[in-house]
Amino acid sequence: MRTIVTGGAGFIGSNLAMMLEQTDEVRILDNFSTGDSRFLGLNSGQRELIEVDISTAKVEALAEIMEGFDRVFHIAANADVRGGWSNHRVDLDQNIIATSNIAEAARRSGVKEIIFASTGCVYGDSTIIPTSENEPFPIQTSLYGSSKAAAEGILSSYAAQGAFNVTVFRFVSILGKNYHHGHVVDFVRKLKANPGELAVLGNGTQKKSYIHVDDCVRALIELRNLKSPFEVFNIGHDYFIPVHKSANLVVESMGLSPRIVFGTEDRGWIGDNPFTFLDISKAQSFGWTPTISIEESVAQTVQYLLDNDWVLSMNLK
Amino acid sequence: MRTIVTGGAGFIGSNLAMMLEQTDEVRILDNFSTGDSRFLGLNSGQRELIEVDISTAKVEALAEIMEGFDRVFHIAANADVRGGWSNHRVDLDQNIIATSNIAEAARRSGVKEIIFASTGCVYGDSTIIPTSENEPFPIQTSLYGSSKAAAEGILSSYAAQGAFNVTVFRFVSILGKNYHHGHVVDFVRKLKANPGELAVLGNGTQKKSYIHVDDCVRALIELRNLKSPFEVFNIGHDYFIPVHKSANLVVESMGLSPRIVFGTEDRGWIGDNPFTFLDISKAQSFGWTPTISIEESVAQTVQYLLDNDWVLSMNLK
Repeated sequence: MRTIVTGGAGFIGSNLAMMLEQTDEVRILDNFSTGDSRFLGLNSGQRELIEVDISTAKVEALAEIMEGFDRVFHIAANADVRGGWSNHRVDLDQNIIATSNIAEAARRSGVKEIIFASTGCVYGDSTIIPTSENEPFPIQTSLYGSSKAAAEGILSSYAAQGAFNVTVFRFVSILGKNYHHGHVVDFVRKLKANPGELAVLGNGTQKKSYIHVDDCVRALIELRNLKSPFEVFNIGHDYFIPVHKSANLVVESMGLSPRIVFGTEDRGWIGDNPFTFLDISKAQSFGWTPTISIEESVAQTVQYLLDNDWVLSMNLK
Repeated sequence: MRTIVTGGAGFIGSNLAMMLEQTDEVRILDNFSTGDSRFLGLNSGQRELIEVDISTAKVEALAEIMEGFDRVFHIAANADVRGGWSNHRVDLDQNIIATSNIAEAARRSGVKEIIFASTGCVYGDSTIIPTSENEPFPIQTSLYGSSKAAAEGILSSYAAQGAFNVTVFRFVSILGKNYHHGHVVDFVRKLKANPGELAVLGNGTQKKSYIHVDDCVRALIELRNLKSPFEVFNIGHDYFIPVHKSANLVVESMGLSPRIVFGTEDRGWIGDNPFTFLDISKAQSFGWTPTISIEESVAQTVQYLLDNDWVLSMNLK
């Protein structure tokens, strides 16, 4: 199969591309804003890398790049949930406009399948937990979540029009190899700077579910949408942990025993969801289930970051 | 009160602005792409008209325009549901990016309230009819619907962040004075060109609800959101009619008896919703209800178009 991976030099995208290149002819698109070719390691299969910013590229150029390809894994995105309020264009450009460009280019080039990495953030502060795919999400709590919901909506209208089939994956936070952005990086950075103290955003009671990127990639590849034009799968773990436990797991993995200082708010930041736990029974009924525990994911991620110092110095603001 | 009306030279916007200028200091923004200053008639109150395209304007410039204003009625939009597939940027630019610009400018300038004209199209082909505000809308059937849903999501995230309060109105099709785009214009145009025959898109069984623009404007002004940061109201009539009856009403209003030729599809076009009927009980519980019948709205609209030939020659494609 001939497969495009947008954001293929990023965290999820690189793990996905490396898995796909064992079987597919893979063309990776990345603007290298947060991606890095080092994530991809040695080329073990059929891989081609194109530097392009899909949020500013002409649709005609993107359609030419996609010509003759069977499917697009659209993984490229701004994944920084917190940054939206300091730069309101980031989510609009990289998540909404980029997805519109990909959808229109796919339609013009005859691509028949788009697999889209969305987020559990689209549910906002859902009051129904665990949250299933059918829950409404009228109130978004972040520009990130609203941009992903918008991208889903755009893709669904192309699917309803018969342009191509779409499978949407709403992920919880993901950990593992090539992880370079998020709370575990923040914790490890802080602890390397000061092993005696760890300041945590929020009061530590926020409850989160995480999965390992290997489980994430398996979902993206295995839960393909072969029958219906538009299908949505929640992808998360079957349990959750509070942020204070997550902090302790990082501390333990590093062999440290710092003073952990929590904030006073029940959210880590404006738009942080104090309780993210997705109902994954639909994905499970299709044969997918998480195989790596949250504890093991955190430990592996900490070890990866300690082994790859350069990742810790990426994207520093 | 000091009030901004975007799209204030358009169909809904002009009716709204003329009502508001009786009580408010009104600043109208319009790019005059489909709006026309003739819709506004003589200035009967406090009115200022600024030509600006909010989809391409700088947020800084928009914030300056909004400085010192209390509220924004964001009415400007691409309202052509059918055009999305021939120009995929129209809904993205005029409905999503424009709304993002308005929201960010409002946040920066301290505007405390945004009233947004959305659409019942956000529900796609809802299977639950009449459709209430709480129904999920996972599958969009048009780029227009998905762009309005995206705009709602962006506004809701600003509201959740405490930037300003938002009231969203999901309208059915609207008729009345200054109506210049939609099926009644299409019918009147066709019948003026050929009074002996009227070709109707779709098989005529599509069921639609319409309201009069006077009822629409009353909803926008009266159902203000004073308590919760984000509120959604469906606005439509309490009954519906099939398209074949709608065609007959136009024909009767014009005093003609043409052969009416229907298509074979149960949709008028790709993305047309064969049955639009909103549950308006929430708006009614807040004191609003439609007062003008669909039949009267169609008759008034036909008369308006016959009295204003120039409107029929607008926006011809």
